[in-house]
Amino acid sequence: MARNTQVSADHNALPVTQILATFVATHPSKGWSDAVDHEAHRTFINWLGCAVGAAKHEAADAAIAAAKMLQPAAQASVLGRADKLDMANAALVNGITSHTFDFDDTHLKTIIHPAGPVASAALALAEHLGNTGREVIDALVIGIDVACRVGNAMYPDHYDRGWHITGSTGTLGAAAACARLLKLDTAQTAMALGIAASQPIGMREQFGTMTKPFHPGGAARAGLMSALLAKNGFTASTKALEAPRGMMQTISTKNDWSEITGELGERFEISFNSYKPFACGIVIHPSIDACAQLRAQGVTPEQIERIELKVHSLVLELTGKKEPQDGLQAKFSVYHGCVAGLTVGQATEDEYHDAFVTHPDNVALRRKVVAVVDDSIDEASADVTAILTDGRRVHIFVEHAIGSLQNPMTTALLESKFHGLSDPILGETQTTALIKACWQVGNAADVKNIIALATPKK
Amino acid sequence: MARNTQVSADHNALPVTQILATFVATHPSKGWSDAVDHEAHRTFINWLGCAVGAAKHEAADAAIAAAKMLQPAAQASVLGRADKLDMANAALVNGITSHTFDFDDTHLKTIIHPAGPVASAALALAEHLGNTGREVIDALVIGIDVACRVGNAMYPDHYDRGWHITGSTGTLGAAAACARLLKLDTAQTAMALGIAASQPIGMREQFGTMTKPFHPGGAARAGLMSALLAKNGFTASTKALEAPRGMMQTISTKNDWSEITGELGERFEISFNSYKPFACGIVIHPSIDACAQLRAQGVTPEQIERIELKVHSLVLELTGKKEPQDGLQAKFSVYHGCVAGLTVGQATEDEYHDAFVTHPDNVALRRKVVAVVDDSIDEASADVTAILTDGRRVHIFVEHAIGSLQNPMTTALLESKFHGLSDPILGETQTTALIKACWQVGNAADVKNIIALATPKK
Repeated sequence: MARNTQVSADHNALPVTQILATFVATHPSKGWSDAVDHEAHRTFINWLGCAVGAAKHEAADAAIAAAKMLQPAAQASVLGRADKLDMANAALVNGITSHTFDFDDTHLKTIIHPAGPVASAALALAEHLGNTGREVIDALVIGIDVACRVGNAMYPDHYDRGWHITGSTGTLGAAAACARLLKLDTAQTAMALGIAASQPIGMREQFGTMTKPFHPGGAARAGLMSALLAKNGFTASTKALEAPRGMMQTISTKNDWSEITGELGERFEISFNSYKPFACGIVIHPSIDACAQLRAQGVTPEQIERIELKVHSLVLELTGKKEPQDGLQAKFSVYHGCVAGLTVGQATEDEYHDAFVTHPDNVALRRKVVAVVDDSIDEASADVTAILTDGRRVHIFVEHAIGSLQNPMTTALLESKFHGLSDPILGETQTTALIKACWQVGNAADVKNIIALATPKK
Repeated sequence: MARNTQVSADHNALPVTQILATFVATHPSKGWSDAVDHEAHRTFINWLGCAVGAAKHEAADAAIAAAKMLQPAAQASVLGRADKLDMANAALVNGITSHTFDFDDTHLKTIIHPAGPVASAALALAEHLGNTGREVIDALVIGIDVACRVGNAMYPDHYDRGWHITGSTGTLGAAAACARLLKLDTAQTAMALGIAASQPIGMREQFGTMTKPFHPGGAARAGLMSALLAKNGFTASTKALEAPRGMMQTISTKNDWSEITGELGERFEISFNSYKPFACGIVIHPSIDACAQLRAQGVTPEQIERIELKVHSLVLELTGKKEPQDGLQAKFSVYHGCVAGLTVGQATEDEYHDAFVTHPDNVALRRKVVAVVDDSIDEASADVTAILTDGRRVHIFVEHAIGSLQNPMTTALLESKFHGLSDPILGETQTTALIKACWQVGNAADVKNIIALATPKK
């Protein structure tokens, strides 16, 4: 995370997105010569002839058969809503929502959030096909293994270059999960992975916009469609990942193939998955954890004279915003994170609402937090001392924050987090039943009960 | 085309596509420890909570609204078939079929085939929305301009690296065309381009498989969906193309921004579009053209003792296959190209059927073609001499083959090519009417007549 390199960055680029958008939106109709307009007709006629001529080709048959597997339209559910969509778009939307709060899982070795693309594709397909819960869990383990192993092979160069690695590897993970649920054989599965290999999704420039969560959503949809295409006989290169002009060498200068093959089927990357207790960047987590521990020891905001926070320089480099003006800015403020920990003992989406961030009491408390750089402290640790109005000093050192691999979220915390997210949507009773069903999904005959419980009552 | 460089190629990569396919398809259910299986349930529950929690977020609203614009399912037509699909999948399939025979248009500066992604998206959307023919032609000119200008900026590094530039820039072209048809304003159009910028599609390793034509198809679909998302309020970075970690810098080391901005709205890249007379790689075209001219001068196969063919070394490097065994291999055989020119006077998909390629007469004639390298001859030229059994020598030099910018396809040839593609699908009478309708599309009140004529009678 300390790296900030990027291949051949050009910071003086012209604003071509805006320039092209203006041209597309405002250039007058037929604002060109007759010769240009004639060429447009020639282009149109040539294109139409080519399309009509190949109308009976087996590629058309395979693609249409795959597209028709999406119909009728209402095949799979949007989680937490009454909406149903075709399964490809359900995968898209659930992939978007699961990443919208930046609160999902993290494969820490690669910063991949693997469940977004993989689970979103798998559950939508399984809902429609009627797969067992066991098949869904198998698909999840295997799909995440594929995405994270390809990520291990390419990381960090691929990420430094500008790719949002969750989307670029997620397409493969989603394709693997769906191939498994469709019970494709090895040859068809290679085609599914091959088709997916032409569709890496996601640039880091999109962070802070809706297109960031679009990346796992788009990857889920692309992977699902790749598997449907392969099932219907669509072909791809059998070396689509590793060839010199295949996916991996095209999008990464580092490729350690042994990361894919080493202990395959013995070591599972899902073992290294982690879950965020707090809805913000991971470098803030130790400070929030420490402040929540102060609160648990009885320290109240009214008692606080000053908070002394010692952290690695990277923490302030990434999240040193002193006066955040809204919830989004607060996600990049370790100072606000301390306020959330001290006042509520947690930092869920609620603590990043604008009203909470700008509340005068919270602003006043935030200004009592004094951060000091100390590079002898690890990036993943925090040293916090509360100086109280009565002169007492209370000291907390967090080596590994809650949610790290060394100090994982307990089952109770994971369930508490789930309630925080789901109770406002589904109500507490239904959420409790949904959590119970999730723990049992590996034994379930199908996923109908999960879907029913994830759908709000009218 | 003479370059054959590729960034950091590793020709000793492990066959990871097959290794992963085998793992995904054959690893036993629950073939891992209870700890791994428990982690899978934790991953599932954490993902589901995040998805439910964000179910009412505006990103979900926008994505669902865009997906619901695809319903009911039968919105747009597959050209040359009776099938109708939702417009996104119709764009996908028409993009596939229009590129399946490698017979579509070529923007020679970048080797982009721009109509595949742009026209496929535009016509499917226009069929559903009821746009005028003028709006379709406007969208085509502007969408192709966007794709080719971005291509100009990145070419050749981006292509050398391994990207199939038709798919990687085509997503932007399709998004621009659809933004135009949806009448998005400049701000929304920037969002459409931005969402599309996270979805470059296509690796060159896929050449020779169905995933090659999938690239323009996938780009058409992705561009169309990007525009639908933008229309419904989905957001992206306003610098998604040009930022250091935006699309262009992430996927190309060369970016000449002035290629995008120079003479924008004055020079139109569609003016430099070309159409293939022959259904094979463009370096074979001069040789076919020369042989077709021999045939036009009355030279018959029976008279031929020997054909002396002088070409640039690149021609044999790329298409020097002496004994092609089937139609696909014949596309890489300049020798077979000469046979097609000498016997039929053209090289359409018919001349690349296996039966034609392996016919004993054609095999015998092919073996009479002797190719000699002469690098004083341009890559785009061919020098052909027929030595006849009566001792006569007939010489043809083709400087610019038919279909080049210097010697463009005439209207008559373009229509003849269209008939060759379409007559077997739609019949000659309907094809003639369709061609007439295509020339008039810029004046048509809508595209209904085009669609009706491109649909086979039951």
